Amino acid sequence: MTDLADIASVGRDARRGGYSRHGFDRAEIELRQWFTEEATRRGLDVQPDRNGNLWAWWGKPGPGAVVTGSHLDSVPGGGAFDGPLGVVSALQAIDLLRAKNFSPVKSIALVVFVEEEGGRFGVACLGSRLMTGAISPEAACKLTDPDGVSFGEAAHKAGFDPLRMGRDDQALRSIGQFVELHVEQGRGLDVPVGLASSILAHGRWRFTFTGEGNHAGATLIEDRRDPMLPASQLVLAARRAATGGARATVGRIVPNPGGTNVIASSVDVWLDARAGDDARTREVVEAISKAAYAASVEEGCEVRVTEESYGDTVHFDSALRDEISGVLGGVPALPTGAGHDAGILAGHVPTAMLFVRNPTGVSHAPAEHAEPDDCAAGVVALASTLEHLAG
Amino acid sequence: MTDLADIASVGRDARRGGYSRHGFDRAEIELRQWFTEEATRRGLDVQPDRNGNLWAWWGKPGPGAVVTGSHLDSVPGGGAFDGPLGVVSALQAIDLLRAKNFSPVKSIALVVFVEEEGGRFGVACLGSRLMTGAISPEAACKLTDPDGVSFGEAAHKAGFDPLRMGRDDQALRSIGQFVELHVEQGRGLDVPVGLASSILAHGRWRFTFTGEGNHAGATLIEDRRDPMLPASQLVLAARRAATGGARATVGRIVPNPGGTNVIASSVDVWLDARAGDDARTREVVEAISKAAYAASVEEGCEVRVTEESYGDTVHFDSALRDEISGVLGGVPALPTGAGHDAGILAGHVPTAMLFVRNPTGVSHAPAEHAEPDDCAAGVVALASTLEHLAG
Repeated sequence: MTDLADIASVGRDARRGGYSRHGFDRAEIELRQWFTEEATRRGLDVQPDRNGNLWAWWGKPGPGAVVTGSHLDSVPGGGAFDGPLGVVSALQAIDLLRAKNFSPVKSIALVVFVEEEGGRFGVACLGSRLMTGAISPEAACKLTDPDGVSFGEAAHKAGFDPLRMGRDDQALRSIGQFVELHVEQGRGLDVPVGLASSILAHGRWRFTFTGEGNHAGATLIEDRRDPMLPASQLVLAARRAATGGARATVGRIVPNPGGTNVIASSVDVWLDARAGDDARTREVVEAISKAAYAASVEEGCEVRVTEESYGDTVHFDSALRDEISGVLGGVPALPTGAGHDAGILAGHVPTAMLFVRNPTGVSHAPAEHAEPDDCAAGVVALASTLEHLAG
Repeated sequence: MTDLADIASVGRDARRGGYSRHGFDRAEIELRQWFTEEATRRGLDVQPDRNGNLWAWWGKPGPGAVVTGSHLDSVPGGGAFDGPLGVVSALQAIDLLRAKNFSPVKSIALVVFVEEEGGRFGVACLGSRLMTGAISPEAACKLTDPDGVSFGEAAHKAGFDPLRMGRDDQALRSIGQFVELHVEQGRGLDVPVGLASSILAHGRWRFTFTGEGNHAGATLIEDRRDPMLPASQLVLAARRAATGGARATVGRIVPNPGGTNVIASSVDVWLDARAGDDARTREVVEAISKAAYAASVEEGCEVRVTEESYGDTVHFDSALRDEISGVLGGVPALPTGAGHDAGILAGHVPTAMLFVRNPTGVSHAPAEHAEPDDCAAGVVALASTLEHLAG
């Protein structure tokens, strides 16, 4: 049977632990090939779209299909479940439906979105953002990875034409309903399967602090303009600002040049901030930005803030949620702080998410886990949902 | 004429700016070849020692020679002068002495030490430390670069036998006096050339903060054990502790895994600390360590501190300094906060340093500069010194 063990060796990160699979890197390309083979073996018709996403069709491609899927990329050093669980579960759900000789009235499609984590090019949900027009193809193709390779170049190398990228109304129209299965990423679920109610408003902001690069030994303290100081103040300010359910995190900081005996000339800090609604999120980022600015002034440094991505609160379609909950005999609905392609699609088509219980709440880390029985329950729930929606 | 322009294109760092030339990397190997050719062209006999350093002899190699030289490696994104100026000036000084038909009574040697900055393998002055036995060959060979390549492997690839490394009494005995010319790295010199009086006690400490990797959106603030918080507190504590002439700097910080939407599971922070004497330096590091520990406990994290290198205060040989100052018609002596191979050798042989004025005080950065007239004055001073000591 197809399961996560089939891809357990792909994209392992020996340095960080876990997996590093990013849009159009070697591991993700290998996983795309694996998906293509698995889908083809099931008689599904695999078709890449213009934006780097992969579709596999059971039935004629066209408007109003029932679509499920997720992504195969990971954060740097991520876990095995975030993304691939939704893809593997979709393939397994097809197997279950085939085994009971289900014949869909509406077409069913499986989709794999590219660069959902933004782990390589910085903007999360890049494939679904491109498809829905939430990011322009020009802006997307200009995004670069840490080696300076642009998304446009990487996509071109993978066989996609950057000039053909952009909002894809045909693909959007093909989706009658979208259901993404995903491992839960907190400890919000005490039964095997649940449904998503909402996603926090969230975004990424890049703070570039600029000071004066100099010698760590020969430069008097009073002569320094060290951007590491305001960068550190930002990290602490983020924690202070994250009150009342808001979250603010710095997980990535890159001093330039990054030498032990060198006062940095500049430091890039990425802030991930999320809160219940747009106003509250803006308030959190504003408080952190003010602290960063004040700390910069104090150290004779400068700071520039760039919003790299942003998405307002998502409320999933309540009618679809209630319908699926009914099919599943009543399951809890819970909010999440994690972003998903489903969150991007929710503004365009009726969208739902199935969550599989996460016993520890750990995610985006090698220790991310879901019990086999819970994963199996997720597949059954997804199959029942597809059967109901497409039957 | 041989000058810094000859090597201006070697090891440029397009991302950081300036130069990245590190022990046994492509750029440093190219510079070694350049040095070997330049020295050979002058009839000097080039001989690598067992520890990766290069020697070029004017006269018979042997005890009691007058030795000058510096290093060709840089910090990441460093300037053009730190290191190469001493090597180029040594070659130019030989030219000046040859032009006046000087014939040395004592042999003169030029030496290029490997990995002075510790920019690749983490321990500064690695070549001179190995030669003097300040680091064991076992410890040195085990040091790794960020790609996991060990110093032993890199040295072996460059033609050196790790099993033959270690304290080199023959090389040490060959040095009667050692004089290193170097660009000054603060703003302590208001004439073209000066002499070093002392080097601050200094070392490098690596702090590894360990918490729990998790999702930046889905993990509640109260559930977090985020090592970025104590890491940031360390940066601020370092600044607070650096009083009364002490220096404490964090220029390198590496969160693992380093994803924007990921709470880090661990963070490595390198502290560079220096002060007037051993006790004061220990006091500064102790204060910073205590703050790091307290901040770790507060966040439910752990911290491990490793001393990666340490050197006590260096007082250069006052008799040699006075002698050289006399030859140069009286030049100022000044202390420095920067470490040098000359500081390592000072515990073993009479050692002096000539400093060339740095108009801005900037060093370890692309903007590092010395005026051509001051560099020329440095060469003349070095030639006069060699002439006096070897004549």
